[in-house]
Amino acid sequence: MIRVDERYRSGLKRERRLRARPMGVDTYQESVVYMREDCAVCRSEGFESQSRIRIEGNGRSLVATLNVVRADWLGHGEAGLSDAAWRQLGADQPCDIEVSHPHTIESFGAVRGRLFGRPVTGGEFRAVIEDITARRYSDVQLSAFVASCVGPGVSRDEVVSLTRAMVDVGQTLRWDRPVVFDKHCVGGLPGNRTSPLVVAIAAACGLIMPKTSSRAITSPAGTADTMETLTDVELSLPDMRRVVEREGGCLVWGGSVNLSPADDVLIRVERVLDLDGEAQLVASVLSKKLAAGSTHALIDVPVGPTAKVRDAAGAEALSDLLRFVGSSLGLTVDVLVTDGTQPVGRGIGPALEAWDLLGVLQGRADAPADLRERAAALAGAILERGGVCGPGEGVDTALAVLADGRAWRKFQAICEAQGGLREPLRAPHRAPAFAARSGRVVNIDNRRLARLAKLAGAPQAPTAGVELLVHLGDRVQADQPVLYVHAEAPGELAYALTYLDSHPELIVVEDGP
Amino acid sequence: MIRVDERYRSGLKRERRLRARPMGVDTYQESVVYMREDCAVCRSEGFESQSRIRIEGNGRSLVATLNVVRADWLGHGEAGLSDAAWRQLGADQPCDIEVSHPHTIESFGAVRGRLFGRPVTGGEFRAVIEDITARRYSDVQLSAFVASCVGPGVSRDEVVSLTRAMVDVGQTLRWDRPVVFDKHCVGGLPGNRTSPLVVAIAAACGLIMPKTSSRAITSPAGTADTMETLTDVELSLPDMRRVVEREGGCLVWGGSVNLSPADDVLIRVERVLDLDGEAQLVASVLSKKLAAGSTHALIDVPVGPTAKVRDAAGAEALSDLLRFVGSSLGLTVDVLVTDGTQPVGRGIGPALEAWDLLGVLQGRADAPADLRERAAALAGAILERGGVCGPGEGVDTALAVLADGRAWRKFQAICEAQGGLREPLRAPHRAPAFAARSGRVVNIDNRRLARLAKLAGAPQAPTAGVELLVHLGDRVQADQPVLYVHAEAPGELAYALTYLDSHPELIVVEDGP
Repeated sequence: MIRVDERYRSGLKRERRLRARPMGVDTYQESVVYMREDCAVCRSEGFESQSRIRIEGNGRSLVATLNVVRADWLGHGEAGLSDAAWRQLGADQPCDIEVSHPHTIESFGAVRGRLFGRPVTGGEFRAVIEDITARRYSDVQLSAFVASCVGPGVSRDEVVSLTRAMVDVGQTLRWDRPVVFDKHCVGGLPGNRTSPLVVAIAAACGLIMPKTSSRAITSPAGTADTMETLTDVELSLPDMRRVVEREGGCLVWGGSVNLSPADDVLIRVERVLDLDGEAQLVASVLSKKLAAGSTHALIDVPVGPTAKVRDAAGAEALSDLLRFVGSSLGLTVDVLVTDGTQPVGRGIGPALEAWDLLGVLQGRADAPADLRERAAALAGAILERGGVCGPGEGVDTALAVLADGRAWRKFQAICEAQGGLREPLRAPHRAPAFAARSGRVVNIDNRRLARLAKLAGAPQAPTAGVELLVHLGDRVQADQPVLYVHAEAPGELAYALTYLDSHPELIVVEDGP
Repeated sequence: MIRVDERYRSGLKRERRLRARPMGVDTYQESVVYMREDCAVCRSEGFESQSRIRIEGNGRSLVATLNVVRADWLGHGEAGLSDAAWRQLGADQPCDIEVSHPHTIESFGAVRGRLFGRPVTGGEFRAVIEDITARRYSDVQLSAFVASCVGPGVSRDEVVSLTRAMVDVGQTLRWDRPVVFDKHCVGGLPGNRTSPLVVAIAAACGLIMPKTSSRAITSPAGTADTMETLTDVELSLPDMRRVVEREGGCLVWGGSVNLSPADDVLIRVERVLDLDGEAQLVASVLSKKLAAGSTHALIDVPVGPTAKVRDAAGAEALSDLLRFVGSSLGLTVDVLVTDGTQPVGRGIGPALEAWDLLGVLQGRADAPADLRERAAALAGAILERGGVCGPGEGVDTALAVLADGRAWRKFQAICEAQGGLREPLRAPHRAPAFAARSGRVVNIDNRRLARLAKLAGAPQAPTAGVELLVHLGDRVQADQPVLYVHAEAPGELAYALTYLDSHPELIVVEDGP
């Protein structure tokens, strides 16, 4: 009903060209552009610090957050780009760019509505996830989106929509097989690194299991982090396909094959917030499985007072949601509720967990029995589903495949196909903690143990973490070592030990028979 | 139950000393520290990009976000500080600092719980607000906190606790008078700049009104932004007290007197998110009033389809919450529900609104009548509460105080006491929009009009904004100018006009009598 006068609009001249160069600043994944305070472009466009800026150049476009600079290390007519922004621009030397105001991010209106309790539609989720994948959301906006997807107010249909949106914006795989398996643990249980064992067993028995894994969200290690200490995990999609076609299984990082790519953007914010809600969890897990072309997924849900899922009711609710969302999107989901009262295996941290895996696969006498048994239970369920053995025979079959070396040979073959098997490193710094008294171990705090491993540097420092020497029910003597902290930097070791010193109840020892 | 070996802990040597210097980078309010990738401290402490770093030096301590740098503009042994970090350190030249891992922010656990639907206690809110005020939260954490405080799940008791916490962490004023007035508009209505008029009228009648105001959150101007185009608003607490003792009223920016200081940290995140929830709104408003020592507050709640409050039910709910929280904390709250169907006055933007104020105060014939009447309604309610006149006589009394120049003289005296009255500037760039057809103005979209003023540069560019030439019910001819966009930069003018061009329904003209 109103209109703008062409005279004014067309009469406006704007200089928006700058010379972009990399500043060598690592701002993690948030793209930042540095512009001089006296920059003509900055002034004529009305940009100020924290403005979101659209950058076009090198045949690409991106949106970055502006930091205004008053200093000589940025020249006149220059725009400095942080590492993340430079990667998005994709240039290999300084080049001309045009800067402008970005379009309004319309999709954020749905996030705002979500926070005020308004349901989000499938189309809205799709728009949000597209914008997130294209890195159009700032960290502050990502944080609000993550916050909007936790809590009791998120409906099942919204989780289905979110999951579908996450699948749709990325690559998807199709396999020329009627049944394709996948497996996942919802986490919360340090050291529960069964996926590599399950893939090795299932593939050794002829099943197809193209496993992609995440890096750690709030835990000291993800399967991708652990596998990276053993072989290459950043495979291209064709390479991943080649590995699976040759060996029946793979163990790669999902981020590198662009399956559900929004997940990897969201994960870093969830990590900063230490926030991993049910809706986001289900969407994250199932979108990866769907994008990988799986028809069947087995989900391990450990339950314990300090695991991610604390009681049977929580496990039931999560299982229901997993099955509901799976079936809504054509994926058969089986759930195995497991004991989550204490860590599985000994190592907590990428390399330490890899050593546990190698022990089990090689059938070493000192390999952690609990990890072997947990893996056999999960693999057994898949072997039964896949018709490899009869009902009730899965666990024994899986144990046999481990015992006779078939799983170890398959694991080696998969790693070779992914780029070669290597031995994990050991941390240069190590310090023990001792039992302060004699008695029986009656409690182990999973969350604090995970926190301890993270303070020691895991997962960024791959050899860092915790080596746990006791399990529930073990008898210990005063001054007996109960764990070792491993670290790559003395500062991190000291930081972890300080935390340990102020949390002696991390492992509780009591009188007992 | 477990303990750390002293040998290990005390044996760890750490070099944590660096030379801090300002980098001249404006990262807005988030403190950032730049450290070299090859920095020994960085490596021994296990820091990486986005790590939160504790910095001690110059007798102060702060927490900053790390950006790792590979470039020559930062020397060996140096740590570069962003403007916000440098301000917190308070040094006037490069100085030695010690860096370390910050303590875990325990209070964030309550934010996490809140998102999952767990109520937050008074003590928890207090801890959160203390940490926020001390700048211990990163932007991503602040965003999650803001997100956790919106929506239907926030209880009244939580709002009381949040409000009390916001008062408690800042300065509070006490006045030696039994009755101290304050006034606030919950916003959403562009141009509704009545506070300066109400303060002038009330103070001219002998009432006490120590008014502190916010800067804009999601609107094109806050009262502090508008007043800043007329006089100084960043007064110290003693200066503010001096002004009020001399003139009975003041119009200062709340942030500079440290009343409810957390509010000013939260506002910038709310601004980025364009998110201003009911709980945060009530806590923000009432914490300022309580901290300023008010006993009575009059709250203007404009209602209209495109105002912040959209209908009578919303106004009633907000009024109830305001009165409940006020009375829980010893503040008498009166609410005046007003017409929010269209902007008040002509100007939208700091300086443009100041010109409207001056017109009303000076009794000019072309002053906007709707602004004068709105101010008289609000001031009248306060005059009646304060016993200046009898019930029902407030509006006429207020209009008389405006008409005879007493309000204008009082306003001049207040501005003189605050540092001198000055004339607002005019924007260098201006462009009209025209009615696309003849007819009657039947709708004006407050939100889009506010957005237009913001795209033109308001409030950062004080003279930018929108000058609205028509009101609801006005007859217009095709090609008649209906508004002018004012801007300080050609880029911003072009950006605003582009938005206008794609939103012609911002003002709807229809056939009509």
